[in-house]
Amino acid sequence: MVFSLTILGCSSAMPSPERFSTAQVLNVLERFFLIDCGEGTQIQLKKYHIKFTRINHVFISHLHGDHFLGLFGFMSSLSLNNRKLPLHIYGPFRLKELIDLFISTMERGIGFDIVFHPLHYQGAELIFEDDKVTVESFPLRHRVPTCGFIFREKLKLKHLKGEVIKELNIPIRLLQSIKEGADFYDEDGNLHPNHTLTKDAAPSRSFAFVTDTAKNQGIIPIIKQVDLLYHEATFADEVKKRAKETGHSTARQAGEIAKRAEVKKLIIGHFSHRYKSLEVLLNEAREEFPNTELAFDGAVFDVK
Amino acid sequence: MVFSLTILGCSSAMPSPERFSTAQVLNVLERFFLIDCGEGTQIQLKKYHIKFTRINHVFISHLHGDHFLGLFGFMSSLSLNNRKLPLHIYGPFRLKELIDLFISTMERGIGFDIVFHPLHYQGAELIFEDDKVTVESFPLRHRVPTCGFIFREKLKLKHLKGEVIKELNIPIRLLQSIKEGADFYDEDGNLHPNHTLTKDAAPSRSFAFVTDTAKNQGIIPIIKQVDLLYHEATFADEVKKRAKETGHSTARQAGEIAKRAEVKKLIIGHFSHRYKSLEVLLNEAREEFPNTELAFDGAVFDVK
Repeated sequence: MVFSLTILGCSSAMPSPERFSTAQVLNVLERFFLIDCGEGTQIQLKKYHIKFTRINHVFISHLHGDHFLGLFGFMSSLSLNNRKLPLHIYGPFRLKELIDLFISTMERGIGFDIVFHPLHYQGAELIFEDDKVTVESFPLRHRVPTCGFIFREKLKLKHLKGEVIKELNIPIRLLQSIKEGADFYDEDGNLHPNHTLTKDAAPSRSFAFVTDTAKNQGIIPIIKQVDLLYHEATFADEVKKRAKETGHSTARQAGEIAKRAEVKKLIIGHFSHRYKSLEVLLNEAREEFPNTELAFDGAVFDVK
Repeated sequence: MVFSLTILGCSSAMPSPERFSTAQVLNVLERFFLIDCGEGTQIQLKKYHIKFTRINHVFISHLHGDHFLGLFGFMSSLSLNNRKLPLHIYGPFRLKELIDLFISTMERGIGFDIVFHPLHYQGAELIFEDDKVTVESFPLRHRVPTCGFIFREKLKLKHLKGEVIKELNIPIRLLQSIKEGADFYDEDGNLHPNHTLTKDAAPSRSFAFVTDTAKNQGIIPIIKQVDLLYHEATFADEVKKRAKETGHSTARQAGEIAKRAEVKKLIIGHFSHRYKSLEVLLNEAREEFPNTELAFDGAVFDVK
């Protein structure tokens, strides 16, 4: 029952050997979602032993090079590896133009279909759903149209208490509704409340990805109480003005958002190169929201 | 008087953490030429402490992703670093389309000019020249139009023997022609052969970059006697057939070309991932041409 985030890169603007451009993989119940795909993402996937073939969905937040330039090499390598399954890409519509032109330069194209899902920037929107997981996009506040993403496990059914079910001889046709929360009346008309028939399911887990953005309180209701929040913290608060001008957040602002959204844990990333040590950023965010961690390439954050 | 090659990447097809995609920097007398620019080139430039600002000329051999996908991130970073000088790019003409579309997605474009020089594939061609250095392109034999490149120091003038010049009281106006090889007749009509007046200049150094290509004897006269030859050796000779089919060379073939071209030193690279150890490739090439070395990321080869 894995719900695990791996950071592949968490630099802002320019990558370095120690800190690649933005990319992450979220594994939700063995679904592998690639979130942003900066230059060198395929190298990081190899480094951290994540199989390319497991990835079927790629989410690109916005059209700045440090968030998407690894996509072309990743696609080429999938094709060299004889991928046949379609790859779903969710991103800004002009990304499709770049992908199409790139593929047109390849003498044999690529051996699988790209299913492109253009993002909209009007409000929260359900962009992916299967039997266990949903993904929503929502607009951020950056220099170009940018989306954050929330990944959620669906609400889980309650677990039946097998012995009670057997003892009361509850018909099979009623079990699904009981898992969904219904009470049960026996033949004598006695009420058996749901909590006597079931155990609570494990809570549904959630992750929100928020980069790049200036401080944006509008996202608070959308990311409310997520288990894990990745929020950019490009700068320290002493250059708050520069953060706002460039459409970025400070570490303190990331902490404020986490606190007001009552998330369980905050990870900050997308660090400016001006910070040789990241202590100042971590301390600032923790002053607002103590359960904060720094992202680093290769870091893994599990939600139990 | 530096003439030095740094390998930034020497993988074929797919990069890995140990071996990035093809890219090299040749420093000829403090001119820094970037040759191919695979994904992650900017990361390798940082890793090996080569300043981005020193690079004014980029040569792209062909339009396969592992040879050019690092160009977009490199250009973006130059722009973020406030580059103003133009960047000269020599490459296949469709690369220009990709560059133009990429720049058109940037909200502020890039802050410097790209001077694009489309390559032709008809024969050896002088594509760059200044007072000290020339660069020629020449066609290779690959699945798509591909060029190799030769970088040469220009022929140097001889050094005057100061004492002899003074003793013979040779007029200043004649010195340039003597440096170029002329003899001297003194007032009494006596011949002073050039070798008595000058010392030989240091020989002009040269480097040939040959990847990707099937074995191609047509290049032998073009690369004749270069000091340093980088030749691809994707495969071992036991899969010679596959090498030919895919437009690549074996290590033995690289050695044969080096031997017949009488080069001084051979570096092999562009290794297939099938070789966990490269010993087989090195041994094969050395059987044909003993002065062979393996490329590796970060390797530096100086020509004295």
